[in-house]
Amino acid sequence: MQIAMIQDKIVPIAELEPAYLDRGIFFGDGVYEVVRSYNGKIFSLEEHMQRFANSLSAIEISGVDIYQILRRVLKSFDASGISNAKIYFHITRGSALRNHVCDADLEPNFFLTVTELEDDSEAKSKGIAVSTHPDWRWKRCDIKSLNLLANVLARRNAAQKGCAEAILVDEAGLITEGASSAFFAISGQTLQTAALTANILSSITRKFAIKAGKNIGLETIEKSLTLQQASGADELLIASTTNDIIPVVEFDEKLIGDGKPGKYTKLLTREFLSFTV
Amino acid sequence: MQIAMIQDKIVPIAELEPAYLDRGIFFGDGVYEVVRSYNGKIFSLEEHMQRFANSLSAIEISGVDIYQILRRVLKSFDASGISNAKIYFHITRGSALRNHVCDADLEPNFFLTVTELEDDSEAKSKGIAVSTHPDWRWKRCDIKSLNLLANVLARRNAAQKGCAEAILVDEAGLITEGASSAFFAISGQTLQTAALTANILSSITRKFAIKAGKNIGLETIEKSLTLQQASGADELLIASTTNDIIPVVEFDEKLIGDGKPGKYTKLLTREFLSFTV
Repeated sequence: MQIAMIQDKIVPIAELEPAYLDRGIFFGDGVYEVVRSYNGKIFSLEEHMQRFANSLSAIEISGVDIYQILRRVLKSFDASGISNAKIYFHITRGSALRNHVCDADLEPNFFLTVTELEDDSEAKSKGIAVSTHPDWRWKRCDIKSLNLLANVLARRNAAQKGCAEAILVDEAGLITEGASSAFFAISGQTLQTAALTANILSSITRKFAIKAGKNIGLETIEKSLTLQQASGADELLIASTTNDIIPVVEFDEKLIGDGKPGKYTKLLTREFLSFTV
Repeated sequence: MQIAMIQDKIVPIAELEPAYLDRGIFFGDGVYEVVRSYNGKIFSLEEHMQRFANSLSAIEISGVDIYQILRRVLKSFDASGISNAKIYFHITRGSALRNHVCDADLEPNFFLTVTELEDDSEAKSKGIAVSTHPDWRWKRCDIKSLNLLANVLARRNAAQKGCAEAILVDEAGLITEGASSAFFAISGQTLQTAALTANILSSITRKFAIKAGKNIGLETIEKSLTLQQASGADELLIASTTNDIIPVVEFDEKLIGDGKPGKYTKLLTREFLSFTV
């Protein structure tokens, strides 16, 4: 008889919950999004849904009604009653016995959580320390997939060094992005971040950070930073959906500027938050 | 209230089954093994358990008693009563609300299936067609992790071309390995396959295939093959736990030899199977 075992308990395969046979766990065969709300209003939901549709298409999960997903996001956000919420959702190709290639008619699995955002006021007011780690990720980081072990290992390494984010460095010694954020340097009146390629996630917060930078008079340079450029910058910051802009005040143990959030970072954050109202 | 949604059903987070919060699905934060039995006897189980221990260590999942896992494998294999079985098992870092960095005391999740091996007699007697695909995998393919989306996409691409396996090609145009197999070429009296690096899984079947090759008088060359070397080889074959040796008779639509399994491949397969008795 074909059987499964969960921890030390034997279960007939026919009686397994579909969650145990999810291709998301066997292969990371799925894509996800994270959106957040500011005071009861979800920020840039349309852009996130568009990117989610792009990710689904890139890994050839078809037959998903993106408007149905949008309605589920809104319904669950509403049901939670959480004003400043983090909404995570993923879709996987479905549940089946493990085989790389599966039936075309598998029904995709949808899963979502709505949770309270963690307090990031200290990180925002004092800034954070970051450390670098080799970028071990796959060659399609433009797809927001569930294959995130490289990101997890980089973040664990950073945490062991007392750092709040890992900044990923490719084999040429160039910075791609943070393990779960976009990475920016400000020097003089320029705001620099890596250009969008297959090695970089098309971050929505990155887009709005660039827009905020322009609004406060910074010139944008979309070009990968070297470690020297990053550690010698006037100011550094990371951008992500859940925490928008966080100042970086220490880079591989080197203080940036005077070790406090820089003036342009503060202006840029204020401008960014004006978009969310 | 913090909530989850499964398909279109809202569930309080506190009532979720742990399987829905498995770091395996959020991040692919886990490692796996596949072993098989021949006529009631599991082949090279010790090597697989050693590799599993190495994978756990490489991603810093600690506190797993590898002998307890070994006992679970044996107990479930025994309970299944399946003579020619495929045994898949994985361990993930555990279940928790999604955060890249998690508590150190999370309890790892173990999951296993024992299923009947699929019939591969036609593939073995006639050989298979393979097609090439860019190797999009991460930079630590020496770790047998659950991050397998690149492998799935390559296999889907192969299947769309009527091929049974995808052969992965790196940015330098060199073959690394198959999406779920090791890849070998035989030319003259040499058996060639890529050397073990961080881009290659330390395949146990590869090791026994090399040993079988030596036993039948083939010289081993551990060096990556170019596409030209592969398509111009006398014989090609793939090696994997579930199917041991499968002859490859078509490579990117080009017939290999006379389009039938080659003589050394047959000899090598016979020698390999002698190890499994």
